[in-house]
Amino acid sequence: MPVYKAPARDTRFVINEVLGLEKYGNLPGYADATPDMIDTIVEEAGKFIAEVVAPLNLSGDQEGCTRNADGSVTTPKGFKDAYDAFCESGWGTLSQPQELGGQGLPHLLALVVEEYLCSANQSFAMYSGLTNGAVASIRVKGSPEQQATYLPKMISGEWSGTMNLTEPHCGTDLGMIRTRAVPQADGAYAITGTKIFISAGEQDLTSNIIHLVLAKTPDAPDSTKGISLFIVPKFLLDAEGNPGERNAVSCGAIEHKMGIRGSATCVMNYDGAKGWLVGEENKGLAAMFIMMNAARIGVGIQGLSQAEAAYQNAVLYAQDRRQGRALTGAADPQEKADQLFVHPDVRRMLMDAKAFTEGMRALTMWGGLLVDLSHKAESEAERAEADEMISLLTPVIKGYGTDKGFETAVNMQQVWGGHGYIEENGMSQFVRDARITQIYEGANGVQAMDLVGRKLGLNGGKAIQAFFAMVDAECAKAKVEPQLADMAGRVEKANGELKAATMWLVQNGMTNPNNAGAGAHHYMHIMGIVSLGLMWLKMGQAAAAALASGAADKAFYESKLMTARYFGERYTPDAGALRRKLEAGSEVLMAMPIEAFATA
Amino acid sequence: MPVYKAPARDTRFVINEVLGLEKYGNLPGYADATPDMIDTIVEEAGKFIAEVVAPLNLSGDQEGCTRNADGSVTTPKGFKDAYDAFCESGWGTLSQPQELGGQGLPHLLALVVEEYLCSANQSFAMYSGLTNGAVASIRVKGSPEQQATYLPKMISGEWSGTMNLTEPHCGTDLGMIRTRAVPQADGAYAITGTKIFISAGEQDLTSNIIHLVLAKTPDAPDSTKGISLFIVPKFLLDAEGNPGERNAVSCGAIEHKMGIRGSATCVMNYDGAKGWLVGEENKGLAAMFIMMNAARIGVGIQGLSQAEAAYQNAVLYAQDRRQGRALTGAADPQEKADQLFVHPDVRRMLMDAKAFTEGMRALTMWGGLLVDLSHKAESEAERAEADEMISLLTPVIKGYGTDKGFETAVNMQQVWGGHGYIEENGMSQFVRDARITQIYEGANGVQAMDLVGRKLGLNGGKAIQAFFAMVDAECAKAKVEPQLADMAGRVEKANGELKAATMWLVQNGMTNPNNAGAGAHHYMHIMGIVSLGLMWLKMGQAAAAALASGAADKAFYESKLMTARYFGERYTPDAGALRRKLEAGSEVLMAMPIEAFATA
Repeated sequence: MPVYKAPARDTRFVINEVLGLEKYGNLPGYADATPDMIDTIVEEAGKFIAEVVAPLNLSGDQEGCTRNADGSVTTPKGFKDAYDAFCESGWGTLSQPQELGGQGLPHLLALVVEEYLCSANQSFAMYSGLTNGAVASIRVKGSPEQQATYLPKMISGEWSGTMNLTEPHCGTDLGMIRTRAVPQADGAYAITGTKIFISAGEQDLTSNIIHLVLAKTPDAPDSTKGISLFIVPKFLLDAEGNPGERNAVSCGAIEHKMGIRGSATCVMNYDGAKGWLVGEENKGLAAMFIMMNAARIGVGIQGLSQAEAAYQNAVLYAQDRRQGRALTGAADPQEKADQLFVHPDVRRMLMDAKAFTEGMRALTMWGGLLVDLSHKAESEAERAEADEMISLLTPVIKGYGTDKGFETAVNMQQVWGGHGYIEENGMSQFVRDARITQIYEGANGVQAMDLVGRKLGLNGGKAIQAFFAMVDAECAKAKVEPQLADMAGRVEKANGELKAATMWLVQNGMTNPNNAGAGAHHYMHIMGIVSLGLMWLKMGQAAAAALASGAADKAFYESKLMTARYFGERYTPDAGALRRKLEAGSEVLMAMPIEAFATA
Repeated sequence: MPVYKAPARDTRFVINEVLGLEKYGNLPGYADATPDMIDTIVEEAGKFIAEVVAPLNLSGDQEGCTRNADGSVTTPKGFKDAYDAFCESGWGTLSQPQELGGQGLPHLLALVVEEYLCSANQSFAMYSGLTNGAVASIRVKGSPEQQATYLPKMISGEWSGTMNLTEPHCGTDLGMIRTRAVPQADGAYAITGTKIFISAGEQDLTSNIIHLVLAKTPDAPDSTKGISLFIVPKFLLDAEGNPGERNAVSCGAIEHKMGIRGSATCVMNYDGAKGWLVGEENKGLAAMFIMMNAARIGVGIQGLSQAEAAYQNAVLYAQDRRQGRALTGAADPQEKADQLFVHPDVRRMLMDAKAFTEGMRALTMWGGLLVDLSHKAESEAERAEADEMISLLTPVIKGYGTDKGFETAVNMQQVWGGHGYIEENGMSQFVRDARITQIYEGANGVQAMDLVGRKLGLNGGKAIQAFFAMVDAECAKAKVEPQLADMAGRVEKANGELKAATMWLVQNGMTNPNNAGAGAHHYMHIMGIVSLGLMWLKMGQAAAAALASGAADKAFYESKLMTARYFGERYTPDAGALRRKLEAGSEVLMAMPIEAFATA
């Protein structure tokens, strides 16, 4: 069975030494997050998740979810007990507001738990993950009464939440949804329609499920400007606010999927179900995007999570499995063969994974800090700056993080050779589970267009300019460090490619938007490389500083410097190739007649 | 259900117009292969496979194979009938010698059938595919008596063959095998041991199974120099040569795998089974490599096959599915949304697939021609030259072809969005089936080392020098063609990167073999890009010539020129990035202590 150990030491390094969370003591809730407190939370949350949640990953995949004849859904064995234990532990409420039953701590601590939980068991993590998204929407857009009615029980985990967007004929293009919401005399709406791909749409973990549903009111415009958001509880609440009568919503089927099989992906039928408007009519998409932006960072983290879990198991296999001899002569002559670790190509795959997971962890933690800064920083200017930066980075975290996360999981499976293809060994599951992260919450092509079409131009391109400057400044600082000078030069060059690609898009994407579309995916990847480069510059400097100050954990810091060097050598060269592909533009792509794609 | 149509027009283009098979009329069997004959074979084989074999792909995956209590294995519903029909049709014996019941036609026609069969149903194709490999070994290394006894019935498909190498503790490193072969008084050997991952080790399609088994005789050296190859039939033959008494070999279990679930992957237990030596004692590995080299080209074709099948279904989806609007304004204003085809990023993925599948098809067909030339060319020099070239290309066809084949299948699944993640739609199966091709018959890291460690230096590097010259000559010719000039310049540059990478390996790989190991995978990919580039140069020129001569099928040839351009623009830039990664060498990779890989 695959193993999982929370990378707590690495998380602590990022939070305390790289981001220096102590510096932000002025933010609400941050004063409590002392390094000691963070260390304890990270270690203990990691221990709990590894012990309670991880052992259910493989069995959950093998068993899957079952829809029973009455439309109820049974989650895999052990999920219910683990869910209850998770709710009781409080690890899911770290950053929720204290007045709603949370602990008011920094948001990035919630992301730490999200990472660990998804590494341990992505399917399991989705049940609470979806609730968090629904909570975010209701907190911002719900009425005070809705907030009081639903949030405390959703935050405690007694009730769960879902997100109902997709319909059989539309996913990305939500303007086409057909689900109807007809106003009733009592102020509620009657919701009718079919939603598909609804994660956790039905389950046996919570006593109620609060569905957030996109639907159209009778006179709504026939576009994304005519979508409203509704709360549709599975059980209507009685006078005391407890689940009472069953609402007219039911699970019609669950999907057979490539992965995340422990997560119930439901077809949800709304048959005149009672729903209540959240926020204003026709403003549903904006409300849903609050949920979606948080969810996109979460999905980027899932890419990291699967890569990390797969990496850990590949490292163990490379130690245990002996096959062949080192190219430079037997490393262990007393054994029949050497460890896989002697083979440079195996090390290449493992180093590639290490450079990604550690870089991506830092990037997502920084993202978590930016989310808090966007809400809690003292000045309006600081809040706006943080908001723009995280808006810019969100599609990169989601798109690049999951593309590279999937690739990493595949490479880690490769380390296992034929044994990686056998389901019982768990490597296949990491790949299959990682695969969905590139697809859901906006397929990565949609992320790329969000980045290029919307985020680059935000506020006159202020965020991307700030990003360029930040990278250049960090390169200049890191170049002073002899062990980082070469790597900093390479990241600087990659940043130059990003600038050139940006300029090309400005010059060629306006006149012909297809040029932007044709290069968007490449651009997202260049920016992913530079973003991880920025993190490695910061981590490298933190490591060098620790070594200079005679820190105890020398091997840990030295490995950071080596991995930073590897990143420079093996990640940054792609930036130039991607820029050249982008500059090819859209001409030949768009010129090909559709019929010419058909197989002749 | 996914669809499949054999790409017969494209195959005919490659064979008749690009390779110009007519020019080889002097080779045995080639005079019969007139363009008309080839067209008929390709069209009819394609039709048969699409109609009879393809419909069993999804159902075979869903049902899988079953091991029964008595150790017998039941293949998925429909496989037996389709197998019988396939054997009767004769499509499996095109290139087998006439004296053994085959049709004596060019080898590349057998590869056409292999491609179509694997696209239609990779699991199904494995049953006859393994037999072909076993036949190849017995033809070269078996005694005349063994050949007469086994080959006609294996070629007709009445009996099947398998390949037993892997044991629980060793796959790549066959020197460690423990299966024993003890000589018996009657000249046979008693074979005892456990083999794993034996494809088609047990099944219900044929009346006998001829296992080829690697084992060690009692006094054999404890290394790859002490391995012998044995024929171990499932049923011993009676006096008339018909299957009689059951041999002491049985299937102990079948594996639950990520993909190719219609293929029975067996644990085979040999319990003093009667076996007969093939060739000389201790020379088993060489005999097995005959099988393996053919198999490696076959696996490269499987990468192409899955990419092609996935591509076809992605093209259909991109036509049928409407979502969003063209960036330049609604393409179909009368519809609620435009086809996915309007989105440049969708086209990018589809063009990427088209450039790969068509280029790879040409490369494998050329490989098939080289195999024939290595056996049948008139002069010794021509045979040696062809043999060296196909030896050089085999790891590229296998390694690059399957890496890129898998990547393509993943991208085609991406075109389907969330619907691609649902098993019933079949896109997941293409990805899961393609995944094994990167692993078996020598994992792709092993292919890369075979290329860099063995093939580059063959005969003083004659083959790679010939390859460089061939590409340069083709670039020079193509540059004259206005529509190919830019693309030819790009391929020439990629060839320059390959030369530079080769030079770097020569200078740095000898002194420190870890430098070769650390760059081998990158090198294999550069060579894959240049190999496809060579094919696109040839295809582009053939298309330009056809257009110049006023050929009827104008759209077909124009799309070739456009795809050649796409290849130049979007494939070749990676060559430079890969070369730079390769030149980073092995220092940081090998310096990292193993403990530093452990998650902290």
